[in-house]
Amino acid sequence: MEAEFIRWLKSTLPQQSPTNGGIGDDCSTMDFNVDSTPVITTDALVDQVHFNVNSQPLDLIGRKSLAVNLSDIAAMGATPVYAVVSLITPGHFTLADLQELYTGMITLAQETGTDIIGGDFNSHDGPLTISITAIGTAARSAIKYRFTTQVNDRIFVTGPLGRSLDGHHLTFSPRLIEGSILARYPDVHSVTDITDGLVVDLDAVLTGDLGAMLQAASIPCRHPTGNSKADTSHAFYDGEDFELLFTVGAQADIGALTEALPHDIYEIGVVNQTNIIQLELQDGSKKTLAITGYEH
Amino acid sequence: MEAEFIRWLKSTLPQQSPTNGGIGDDCSTMDFNVDSTPVITTDALVDQVHFNVNSQPLDLIGRKSLAVNLSDIAAMGATPVYAVVSLITPGHFTLADLQELYTGMITLAQETGTDIIGGDFNSHDGPLTISITAIGTAARSAIKYRFTTQVNDRIFVTGPLGRSLDGHHLTFSPRLIEGSILARYPDVHSVTDITDGLVVDLDAVLTGDLGAMLQAASIPCRHPTGNSKADTSHAFYDGEDFELLFTVGAQADIGALTEALPHDIYEIGVVNQTNIIQLELQDGSKKTLAITGYEH
Repeated sequence: MEAEFIRWLKSTLPQQSPTNGGIGDDCSTMDFNVDSTPVITTDALVDQVHFNVNSQPLDLIGRKSLAVNLSDIAAMGATPVYAVVSLITPGHFTLADLQELYTGMITLAQETGTDIIGGDFNSHDGPLTISITAIGTAARSAIKYRFTTQVNDRIFVTGPLGRSLDGHHLTFSPRLIEGSILARYPDVHSVTDITDGLVVDLDAVLTGDLGAMLQAASIPCRHPTGNSKADTSHAFYDGEDFELLFTVGAQADIGALTEALPHDIYEIGVVNQTNIIQLELQDGSKKTLAITGYEH
Repeated sequence: MEAEFIRWLKSTLPQQSPTNGGIGDDCSTMDFNVDSTPVITTDALVDQVHFNVNSQPLDLIGRKSLAVNLSDIAAMGATPVYAVVSLITPGHFTLADLQELYTGMITLAQETGTDIIGGDFNSHDGPLTISITAIGTAARSAIKYRFTTQVNDRIFVTGPLGRSLDGHHLTFSPRLIEGSILARYPDVHSVTDITDGLVVDLDAVLTGDLGAMLQAASIPCRHPTGNSKADTSHAFYDGEDFELLFTVGAQADIGALTEALPHDIYEIGVVNQTNIIQLELQDGSKKTLAITGYEH
């Protein structure tokens, strides 16, 4: 089946250049503009942890596997260029299963300008495992890190949070446009994507003695229930939102930024030097949030 | 344990540059010389297929996982620069297990000048799975592909073949020096590494109607038994040798090449236009070899 699968891949993936062995050679070659800096990320997804092959469509599982990697590219302010894909499939997997899995991946790759240029294929007596490495590029000065947050920065997210496992985690579009727009603004100090939950991922951009005060009334919640306490709890701890979390200098004029972005953004709090993350409730009371999140 | 493991990794891996978020950011940045072409390869290894956690030391399993990737870099005539590592560990894995696994990997990384710049970590109720993507660079004109073999090329391998699973597959050194030397010789037409067995990997460099005639007496066998028929069978079909297989133009003077290489090389046959791979036995008789190899 491997030979048949690789033949199908070669005919389905965009043609490699004539000076590139491409799919089927020992390595694939890459080209970068001399004035861009390549960035790299890798995420491995496995059945029963990140998806469920018995209840979720294979094309969406394939799509998600690439999307979580592209979300990391977006969080650097970079544009995706290449990806390589390692599959370890259960023994009962058919060629049609592989094709469905790959079709979801290839569709998102094409939508985002990502060339799948190589990979590896094995089968075993165990769970479906998909490991993808994605490579993007950005101007060096535009790359957005996590450790560059400053005190008094305003904290934003690009969309509603919580309850992603109801379906959003399989169908989300990585925030590549938002990431590339944020990259153009020097007042945007830190960017990350929300994978483990708002609190854990916010903590990751609060280096040293930095802390934050969040406003309960400002947290955008997916599928709100009317019970705002339950809703914010999902927003803080569910994870897999794949929205961007970013901080902006206190003095910055964010008018141009919000105008450039395609969707509304949500201001949720401010960076301070308390070394803890607190939530201010609508009655003015404050509570400290535990730094825990979604454990896969 | 993940947090503790990442702290250990950060203190163990070479320091990232101050402008690089490095381990723990969404992506890692890469730098390439403007006159070099980056190449990329990915290989995923899984317990009970590529190694056995119950009977093999974890540091050698870690070493092998990187080494098989570096072997692909060598087979392009490239020099390794970066690697990213995705681990999916069984639930019972301890921090000490992770450290032993990584120590084997880091030792080989340091020996070969490979910077481990990122990764991903998950645990599950299933087999240890290690997925590595390695990136190297070469001068564009020096890159060696598989599809550039010419009729009448002489066929060589860099070392003895067969019976690798007795131990060699865990301890081999990827043929990086040999690959970089082969890259300097335009008369070297095609290079690959032997992973699936000599016959399958030779077939991969015989594009179109190219075939080959091998000389039984010239096949270098690991641990020869005195039964040359059994020995060549191991050499043809065992796989996981991670020696380089390369072809050289018929008119080339290979004196300078053999002098530059640190170890003996073995000339095993010649490329023809028969579209099959044949073996000439010492009595002058010929037989056609089946294009099958080691199925993991």
